[in-house]
Amino acid sequence: MGKPIVLSGMQPTGKLHLGNLEGALRNWVSLQDNYEMYLCIVDWHSLTSDFDHTQDLKERIFQMAVDYLASGLDPDKCAVFVQSHVKEHAELFLLLSMIVPIPWLERVPSYKEKSVELNLDSYGFLGYPLLQAADILLYKANYVPVGKDQLPHIELTREVARRFNHIYGNVFPEPDVLLTKFAVVPGIDGRKMSKSYNNDIAIADSPEETEKKVMKMITDPQKIYKGDKGRPEICPVYSLHQIYNSNYQEIYKGCTSGELGCVDCKKMLASHINSNLAPIRAKRKELEKSPDKVKQVLENGEKRARARAQATMQDVRKAMKLE
Amino acid sequence: MGKPIVLSGMQPTGKLHLGNLEGALRNWVSLQDNYEMYLCIVDWHSLTSDFDHTQDLKERIFQMAVDYLASGLDPDKCAVFVQSHVKEHAELFLLLSMIVPIPWLERVPSYKEKSVELNLDSYGFLGYPLLQAADILLYKANYVPVGKDQLPHIELTREVARRFNHIYGNVFPEPDVLLTKFAVVPGIDGRKMSKSYNNDIAIADSPEETEKKVMKMITDPQKIYKGDKGRPEICPVYSLHQIYNSNYQEIYKGCTSGELGCVDCKKMLASHINSNLAPIRAKRKELEKSPDKVKQVLENGEKRARARAQATMQDVRKAMKLE
Repeated sequence: MGKPIVLSGMQPTGKLHLGNLEGALRNWVSLQDNYEMYLCIVDWHSLTSDFDHTQDLKERIFQMAVDYLASGLDPDKCAVFVQSHVKEHAELFLLLSMIVPIPWLERVPSYKEKSVELNLDSYGFLGYPLLQAADILLYKANYVPVGKDQLPHIELTREVARRFNHIYGNVFPEPDVLLTKFAVVPGIDGRKMSKSYNNDIAIADSPEETEKKVMKMITDPQKIYKGDKGRPEICPVYSLHQIYNSNYQEIYKGCTSGELGCVDCKKMLASHINSNLAPIRAKRKELEKSPDKVKQVLENGEKRARARAQATMQDVRKAMKLE
Repeated sequence: MGKPIVLSGMQPTGKLHLGNLEGALRNWVSLQDNYEMYLCIVDWHSLTSDFDHTQDLKERIFQMAVDYLASGLDPDKCAVFVQSHVKEHAELFLLLSMIVPIPWLERVPSYKEKSVELNLDSYGFLGYPLLQAADILLYKANYVPVGKDQLPHIELTREVARRFNHIYGNVFPEPDVLLTKFAVVPGIDGRKMSKSYNNDIAIADSPEETEKKVMKMITDPQKIYKGDKGRPEICPVYSLHQIYNSNYQEIYKGCTSGELGCVDCKKMLASHINSNLAPIRAKRKELEKSPDKVKQVLENGEKRARARAQATMQDVRKAMKLE
């Protein structure tokens, strides 16, 4: 018996931030010894909403791969690859489209929300969770590490697998979720950290940029002067202390008693973040200077991914009597 | 300048009938000297409605290829191939899905009709005309020979091409239609000849089977006895005479005067059909005995189709900045 298979992916947003690092990357690194990992940079997915924003797509993919590797993903243990380079994703998406009723897709919560929010009505956007199901099933993944917001997508994937197996015979395992511990990392404005909110601290930021951003963070509005008693439980600075400062209880005490002012508190946080990220940033700089090395990692990952994808597609076509 | 490109396709229904022969095949044969032809057996399309009816799909594809070749399609002039063997169809379908609004697909007349008639609500069925657009654009086809019922599909294809060219730059020509002369051939029950109505005369039928079927054809219900005056204009037997009997005016005279009885009229029709089809049927028998030869034709067609499809996809990916 080989290791269980894990599939995960991210849209190529470019330089990743602390939310990506704590919400996904560290988790992947912790899994890589015990699972066979397929980590897919899902560029086709990014077209579902950003179809007319592809000028810098290749650069975004490169920067993302750099962050992956700098964060400790070992390319010998994980197949890191670009979705659009493994054409079998498109073939399986098309085949699965034949057995998936439209209402299954319309009832996915993210579809309802985003189609209104982003004014998206494309056929491809409706098919987003089906493409995700194809991504997962293509590798016969046993586990998908996701945050809670992705649960309905995994449930759909399981339904699609069941329906395929029922019609054509048993080909796909039903994937289970591996829920991620740190799901939400606040950005400097207190909302969830997200590139699209422009509230993120990037892995690639310099220590100075990091400190600048931390100093701008919102804090408890009732704590105006040092000496005012603060409420760490509503303060995003404290949330980040909990992640990056092992002595975060001291911060709690200082804030609630009023002894610690926000300026000092933020300087301490910036220093903790910077020392925590220092080795990742150093590796990042090295990798940025060796684009060929990064390219080689992606090519090797692609080869391994394709081999598994092709094996699955043979099973799929055979079951469907297409060959 | 090379010859203009023509793309056409049929779902692999198996053994073709006179409707297919007169509505499509003969037209293709007449075009093959002046156009570069890509003739696609669209097995993926057949899954949009028949996803659970794939047991005999390979045999249906084979029989269809046999009919193509027996009817006079020259594999040196036409690339005859199976859609699912050229994976670029799936990739282009996926990419185009990102820029096509769902209402464009919902308003295609055949979608509205068939989704109710066949109780189909799959995502793939909604995408049917988009897959067809991908089939056409993948070869940068200049012309598509179709019947009138397919006009809205070609119009959609043109819209998709325009939208792609507008967003990403000029890649696709807008295909024009080549309207087919004999669009509707009646079946033995008077409705349009169709395998699904079970009213068809197959190219592969023996002369005896053909005569049997012709003898069962419905005729003008007011002409009961020889001597009764008939109305050829409402009689499907006469419609077929118009196609297969160069002396069809004599039939008209005999029927309207009452001199010609329906039994004799049908015997004459069967004899004309059989002598017309004799050379095709002879070639058909030969080909059925040489499945390797048919396979070779499909493989050669596939190679030529893939070469053109790959060239188009390079243009597409470059325009979209995917590579």
